[in-house]
Amino acid sequence: MTESSSVPTIGVFDSGFGGLTVLRALIALAPQAHYSFIGDTARLPYGSKSRRTIARYAAQSARFLVEEEGADYLVIACNTASALALEDIRAAVPSSVSVIGVIEPGAQAARRASKTGDVLVIATDATVHSHAYAAACRTQGLRTLEKACPLLVPLVEEGWVTPSTLNEPLAPQTASAPPQLAVTAEVVRIYLEELSTEAAAEGLNPDTLVLGCTHYPLLKPIIERVLPAGTKIIDSAQSTASELVMYLCRDLGAPPKPAPTDPILRFFATDSVEKFERLGSRFLGRPVGNVQLVDLGG
Amino acid sequence: MTESSSVPTIGVFDSGFGGLTVLRALIALAPQAHYSFIGDTARLPYGSKSRRTIARYAAQSARFLVEEEGADYLVIACNTASALALEDIRAAVPSSVSVIGVIEPGAQAARRASKTGDVLVIATDATVHSHAYAAACRTQGLRTLEKACPLLVPLVEEGWVTPSTLNEPLAPQTASAPPQLAVTAEVVRIYLEELSTEAAAEGLNPDTLVLGCTHYPLLKPIIERVLPAGTKIIDSAQSTASELVMYLCRDLGAPPKPAPTDPILRFFATDSVEKFERLGSRFLGRPVGNVQLVDLGG
Repeated sequence: MTESSSVPTIGVFDSGFGGLTVLRALIALAPQAHYSFIGDTARLPYGSKSRRTIARYAAQSARFLVEEEGADYLVIACNTASALALEDIRAAVPSSVSVIGVIEPGAQAARRASKTGDVLVIATDATVHSHAYAAACRTQGLRTLEKACPLLVPLVEEGWVTPSTLNEPLAPQTASAPPQLAVTAEVVRIYLEELSTEAAAEGLNPDTLVLGCTHYPLLKPIIERVLPAGTKIIDSAQSTASELVMYLCRDLGAPPKPAPTDPILRFFATDSVEKFERLGSRFLGRPVGNVQLVDLGG
Repeated sequence: MTESSSVPTIGVFDSGFGGLTVLRALIALAPQAHYSFIGDTARLPYGSKSRRTIARYAAQSARFLVEEEGADYLVIACNTASALALEDIRAAVPSSVSVIGVIEPGAQAARRASKTGDVLVIATDATVHSHAYAAACRTQGLRTLEKACPLLVPLVEEGWVTPSTLNEPLAPQTASAPPQLAVTAEVVRIYLEELSTEAAAEGLNPDTLVLGCTHYPLLKPIIERVLPAGTKIIDSAQSTASELVMYLCRDLGAPPKPAPTDPILRFFATDSVEKFERLGSRFLGRPVGNVQLVDLGG
């Protein structure tokens, strides 16, 4: 561990800044750790790329966090990379580094939440095509139906979300212009209605929806309004943070003590530092500053 | 020239497959050329990346087309790369290769179309922030207002467009489900209304709209319905194809003769060959087959 034996360094990786929703959940549960977050923004989105390419890119970021930042733990805060490249990432770093993805904890939380045993998953194209959630849920004894929702990430990045999903006010033109929110609500409704129709056709009786993309927590209030009453929503950021705390307890003998000051946060991006700082704060719920540009050689 | 002195090889480059709308216009005007198209799909979209990164990526594709495919002409069928990296691309290839972007021809067509001298441009984030259209239009004596419309590319790629914009039928669930088209129409309406309000506030009297992204021609019927009657729409794919024919006439002494058979087309992508073939035909208006995977080393 880099600074002191009692303060672990946790490396958090995403293809963009959506993973900052995972970092936000991590900080809430383990505020005294040191965090280094890298967003591979030069090569996002991973969601439309092949397994081979995603594995190569993710391994480069993982090595950066371990070799340059001294990470003791790696949280792969990217559903696509967790789905397609978790083993490649583990192979790219020393075996002493614990690597945690977001899929497994999400599937475990779905098992705890579901009474019917039938679960829906929404995610990016690549995550869905990997069927990683279906496999992880099957291990938990759940039946699943997955659906790719490619428009949701751009809608979140455009800021067409409700102010209540954020800790900061929306841009003025968005806050005063409900048509944008109506568009987002209609897109969510279309996707979830298609998913519900497919689930019925397959004889499923789902009572739980897994948000299989780190951008989607910002759509939670809209999704809640569209879903049938009583449907549980699993935000895998929360589940992943709980998983990390379990690792910390195991390794340190106790969870990190509550921090007297703000956690130490370091941010890196492979491109668009300005955009990262501007959009990142929406996802992290606090200002994102001093983002450093790194070149992973791609 | 690679095969015979009278048959030029034209390299066409885009970050994805949107540039196939430009290839489509090129084939219509110069069917007897050989065409090699490369889509840098592993690293798309360029629209959200920095100038430095875009220039590096675009130069790699340009060198591939010249060195591996023997291109005599390069058409940069990507607004973002044309806006930010045209000089870098010219520097990366021998000076004997003519390099044509899509910005300049679009601005020239706007000048011919506009009576008021005031022009609107819609494009990706990076193209707008480069202000390359504004600069090119200023050279033509036009006043311009540009607007980034980040949701339009994902809507086109999701297939939420009208059947009449395509030569092939839409996927069944889309053809029978008007809500998707209503979403796209509402997004276009919101963007164009914001743009129109800003234009009025700046004292402009625009009569022409430039489609500054190669995906947007597929939205033309929707855009036409939303725009005030009489507004002219400039599709820079058409203008770019005319520019290339001018070059061919200059170099060959005459435009290529009409082809007795189909043109020779070769397709390359840096990722997602299957997706390229599946989505590409929408943009090209004919089947896209035998796409070869290439590794540009990034």
